[in-house]
Amino acid sequence: MNMHNLSQRPVGVLGATGYTGLEVLRVLREHDGVRVRFATSEGRAGEEACLPGVTLVSADEAPLGEVDLVFLCLPHGEAAGWARRALASGVRVVDLTADHRPGSGREDGAVYGMADLEGPDVREARLVANPGCYATGVELALHPLLKGGLLDEGRTVVVSAASGVTGAGRTPKRDLLFAEVAGDFRAYATGNGHRHLLEMRAGLPGLDLLFQPHLLPVSRGILETIYAPVREDVDATAVRAAWREAYGGADTIRVMDGVPALRDVVGTDLLALGAVDNAGLGTPVVTVVAALDNLGKGAAGQAVQNMNLMLGFEPARGLRWRV
Amino acid sequence: MNMHNLSQRPVGVLGATGYTGLEVLRVLREHDGVRVRFATSEGRAGEEACLPGVTLVSADEAPLGEVDLVFLCLPHGEAAGWARRALASGVRVVDLTADHRPGSGREDGAVYGMADLEGPDVREARLVANPGCYATGVELALHPLLKGGLLDEGRTVVVSAASGVTGAGRTPKRDLLFAEVAGDFRAYATGNGHRHLLEMRAGLPGLDLLFQPHLLPVSRGILETIYAPVREDVDATAVRAAWREAYGGADTIRVMDGVPALRDVVGTDLLALGAVDNAGLGTPVVTVVAALDNLGKGAAGQAVQNMNLMLGFEPARGLRWRV
Amino acid sequence: MNMHNLSQRPVGVLGATGYTGLEVLRVLREHDGVRVRFATSEGRAGEEACLPGVTLVSADEAPLGEVDLVFLCLPHGEAAGWARRALASGVRVVDLTADHRPGSGREDGAVYGMADLEGPDVREARLVANPGCYATGVELALHPLLKGGLLDEGRTVVVSAASGVTGAGRTPKRDLLFAEVAGDFRAYATGNGHRHLLEMRAGLPGLDLLFQPHLLPVSRGILETIYAPVREDVDATAVRAAWREAYGGADTIRVMDGVPALRDVVGTDLLALGAVDNAGLGTPVVTVVAALDNLGKGAAGQAVQNMNLMLGFEPARGLRWRV
Amino acid sequence: MNMHNLSQRPVGVLGATGYTGLEVLRVLREHDGVRVRFATSEGRAGEEACLPGVTLVSADEAPLGEVDLVFLCLPHGEAAGWARRALASGVRVVDLTADHRPGSGREDGAVYGMADLEGPDVREARLVANPGCYATGVELALHPLLKGGLLDEGRTVVVSAASGVTGAGRTPKRDLLFAEVAGDFRAYATGNGHRHLLEMRAGLPGLDLLFQPHLLPVSRGILETIYAPVREDVDATAVRAAWREAYGGADTIRVMDGVPALRDVVGTDLLALGAVDNAGLGTPVVTVVAALDNLGKGAAGQAVQNMNLMLGFEPARGLRWRV
Repeated sequence: MNMHNLSQRPVGVLGATGYTGLEVLRVLREHDGVRVRFATSEGRAGEEACLPGVTLVSADEAPLGEVDLVFLCLPHGEAAGWARRALASGVRVVDLTADHRPGSGREDGAVYGMADLEGPDVREARLVANPGCYATGVELALHPLLKGGLLDEGRTVVVSAASGVTGAGRTPKRDLLFAEVAGDFRAYATGNGHRHLLEMRAGLPGLDLLFQPHLLPVSRGILETIYAPVREDVDATAVRAAWREAYGGADTIRVMDGVPALRDVVGTDLLALGAVDNAGLGTPVVTVVAALDNLGKGAAGQAVQNMNLMLGFEPARGLRWRV
Repeated sequence: MNMHNLSQRPVGVLGATGYTGLEVLRVLREHDGVRVRFATSEGRAGEEACLPGVTLVSADEAPLGEVDLVFLCLPHGEAAGWARRALASGVRVVDLTADHRPGSGREDGAVYGMADLEGPDVREARLVANPGCYATGVELALHPLLKGGLLDEGRTVVVSAASGVTGAGRTPKRDLLFAEVAGDFRAYATGNGHRHLLEMRAGLPGLDLLFQPHLLPVSRGILETIYAPVREDVDATAVRAAWREAYGGADTIRVMDGVPALRDVVGTDLLALGAVDNAGLGTPVVTVVAALDNLGKGAAGQAVQNMNLMLGFEPARGLRWRV
Repeated sequence: MNMHNLSQRPVGVLGATGYTGLEVLRVLREHDGVRVRFATSEGRAGEEACLPGVTLVSADEAPLGEVDLVFLCLPHGEAAGWARRALASGVRVVDLTADHRPGSGREDGAVYGMADLEGPDVREARLVANPGCYATGVELALHPLLKGGLLDEGRTVVVSAASGVTGAGRTPKRDLLFAEVAGDFRAYATGNGHRHLLEMRAGLPGLDLLFQPHLLPVSRGILETIYAPVREDVDATAVRAAWREAYGGADTIRVMDGVPALRDVVGTDLLALGAVDNAGLGTPVVTVVAALDNLGKGAAGQAVQNMNLMLGFEPARGLRWRV
Repeated sequence: MNMHNLSQRPVGVLGATGYTGLEVLRVLREHDGVRVRFATSEGRAGEEACLPGVTLVSADEAPLGEVDLVFLCLPHGEAAGWARRALASGVRVVDLTADHRPGSGREDGAVYGMADLEGPDVREARLVANPGCYATGVELALHPLLKGGLLDEGRTVVVSAASGVTGAGRTPKRDLLFAEVAGDFRAYATGNGHRHLLEMRAGLPGLDLLFQPHLLPVSRGILETIYAPVREDVDATAVRAAWREAYGGADTIRVMDGVPALRDVVGTDLLALGAVDNAGLGTPVVTVVAALDNLGKGAAGQAVQNMNLMLGFEPARGLRWRV
């Protein structure tokens, strides 16, 4: 790993000291098909990255032309410019920010990298928009159900989601201080206006989605409890069957008999899915639970999965799927 | 407080070392209208209670006949027998267990003590069944909306709730160990079969309720995010107006302009309520957030509120409503 | 409380939205001898304080001349100027910052307000320097032992202390983010150079002190484990006796038979003390454990205790001593 | 890994569902030199272990004779009998309990497996007593200092240690419930009588040790702050030099320039060491900080390191040394 094996493909990471960039490095250091040529930090240039032998440099000094692919782990809004520079240098891009996602206004020319759904396009892409963490769980959970006609599209799909605080980034804010978060739990982005809804609606056309996120007093992990109205003849067994048909061969998605908890996925690049029927309702609703690590499958894991597709590796190479 | 003032009414607490019983003592010690005549514990008889001058005794040794009212803070299933003994001695009872709640099979002869809704009956009651913690938030949030005709009763009301671990009691179980709960978040009682649903359905007749609880890595507090389908002409403003009409004078319920968080209620005997309209849906849904401390308003706070009604005190006397 | 009772003494709080200022307000609102005439905030002027009927104003607009006493809960370094202004207006001052503590260079003219030790001077003081949180525990634990000749002064007293994160204030810093603190524990201010040592040395002259603080993943509370070398004939019983002689009548200090934990003091204005003999050592060392809430006895509690002395109230009036 | 490679050495784990046994499996599944032939659980026999293809069996059904080495991860007191059975079958043993450690009364015939110090003996051992978690940090930190004559042996060495709750095992106890531990911090085993002292004294003969552990509200990790009295001419630089000389080539011990935090070691099999000089003392004391994961280097990591020595592998093979 990272032993300057000549056959390893060189890649770079722009923004390597935020939570997302750090996690990309953590995944890449176990990936034997690539080596990290550079990792950037404005505030900590000159220090060692969390990779042996890699010294952080400022973005302006990164040898952009010497890599095959670059990961953009910058603050939202700063990625678009760097994407242009990289593409102009012939470097392929996986953008982990929201800058090129559906609804951003810059989605033209970018492939939306929901890797388990859109492999073929991603393989050829020059610029991949890595999906949002919440959107990853919701779209992968519901896409097979929508496509298979299992949902009663006339009724609202309620997504009640909760995320650990690393989802909000590493920039210091009062609301993210330990003493503010510990012991608390709260809804945010109320009113159905969260940014990720744009992606979800693009990926799940026709669904009436209500998405409500909450902030959990944990560092990592997303749990999405999805109240999915289904057609009269559909139950949890059918839901699991649809998932297994869609994702049967993937190492990156685990369909469970029960429902997953954060504990089943934190530290991995897995999405875990479960479904349960509900008793005593007038019209059937299947409760779907999707669990993922917001920094794993919700960011770095899917980014490396997209890189794997782009560079011709096995999709799950280097990824973590055991707790 | 507890200075053996002759005008103070004597009360007792059966089961004073679990989380609920401890909290009842904590509320009572600031209540100047009563004094705690006894507090029981099987395992710690002979030790001091968290009240100056009160020594724990075993339940069999408690001078049941010397109190006006007794709180039952026993494990579910053990309260019914003690309630009979107390009533036979002419002692009034507030039962904090599930033993006499609607759907228990023992609800006859008991008044369901949703104190902010059912004051008149509670005042005369010999035996009050103190509502469940989850049920308290759901019923108080939805009752005025149901009664006022604001809800679209043809659609399912989804309640996605989360509770701190004291809601599960103090008996040691592997699933409640620190190392199991910290960093985790999980759904439980899946399938719409939670015990509190029986109460909720009795209190909210005709509603199609889907109730899904989750376990939070916090010690105390419940947040219930309720996705309430409303009639076409109803919005969050109308929801708040209905609450204010129903609870306007109560110190125990706070209607907020935004939505409450756990932090707004933990350590208090308050229920906090908020409502928000949702954009972009086919049919209107108002998101209602109810927050309460499961040990406060969800248990001891409401129990003392019921006692206040039964003994002729002001309803909120001795209760805590500031964070 | 705060009902504009004419006999209540008017006081003000400069800096009312940090953790310390908020806690001062929380204590004062239960204190029936004073009313809060103003509370300041630069960032949130115009909003309501956590006191009914008190609107936050900027410090420049505070009616300094209309109060008998002002609490300075400002960032370290900003208090000295405000203290001069207040004193010039004839207003007495309790300064919760480090600006006037021993070793600050500005201690002349200020009385060091270790309330349980220095009541007489504090009563007359115009300007009281409220002690640091760590210093409060160490000095109150060791002062009676030093004065009583129980310590073997030739050997080093090791203080291994740990504090919750509110001790570091509410200004956003990366190191205080939830995701940085949760699951971690670390020593800081290594090398025996913590600011509070200046106070401790002034209060405990002649002792050879090694003070090492650590950061705990909790919001509130300080535990100080003090390895106190004692004379050959001294044991834990003698230590407790010395404390009881010094503090016997105080409601603000609790001498325990065992050793206290954070849980025994968080949310109170207590200092809890315990002592244990150690087996198998060449020379005797008594382990002393001091526990206090850094925001309670370590800040707001002691500040109000000082105010009580200054204004002629009972020392513990309005303070919290039950968990 | 575990692909039934014929050249892999078969090993077994007795007690595979406690925190320690689970962690041994987690380390072994990444170790390509061995395969887990069996893993036992009394309560969960028949379920799958956290290893693909390994089904839990009860200990009585484990094919003890088919493995080269067995790990004993049983409750303290239950290991001695199983060790005898295994040895009688010609199976080598790494005992992670306290049953064969120095001071246990059963240490004869066992080699104390402080792997970084005692490699030669361990290589030949039939029965290795894996050291206690606290003892591992203390002995590895102090052994080179004692051996090198850096310590002032006439003065007491104070070890103020703190551990996460998994150190107390997975058996349900009230004191380990989430709601008891969260927000708390407490000293325990006061009076210098902790079981690990017997090991420490055997490993560090002649030192006057005061060992005081505390319980941290975290799941994993030990931080030991050691106040080490040193000879007049010794400083932190000399301490680091002694460590580097003793452990220079080891992947399992990291000597830092500053001091380590829990965050630097949790999830790894590392011991991290740091040292700092203290200003202003009468006689010199170097503060040594040792950090390790109680389940990693403090249990499973060192157990596998011992196995590596016994089976002829590289000492650090399969171990985790990156955060």
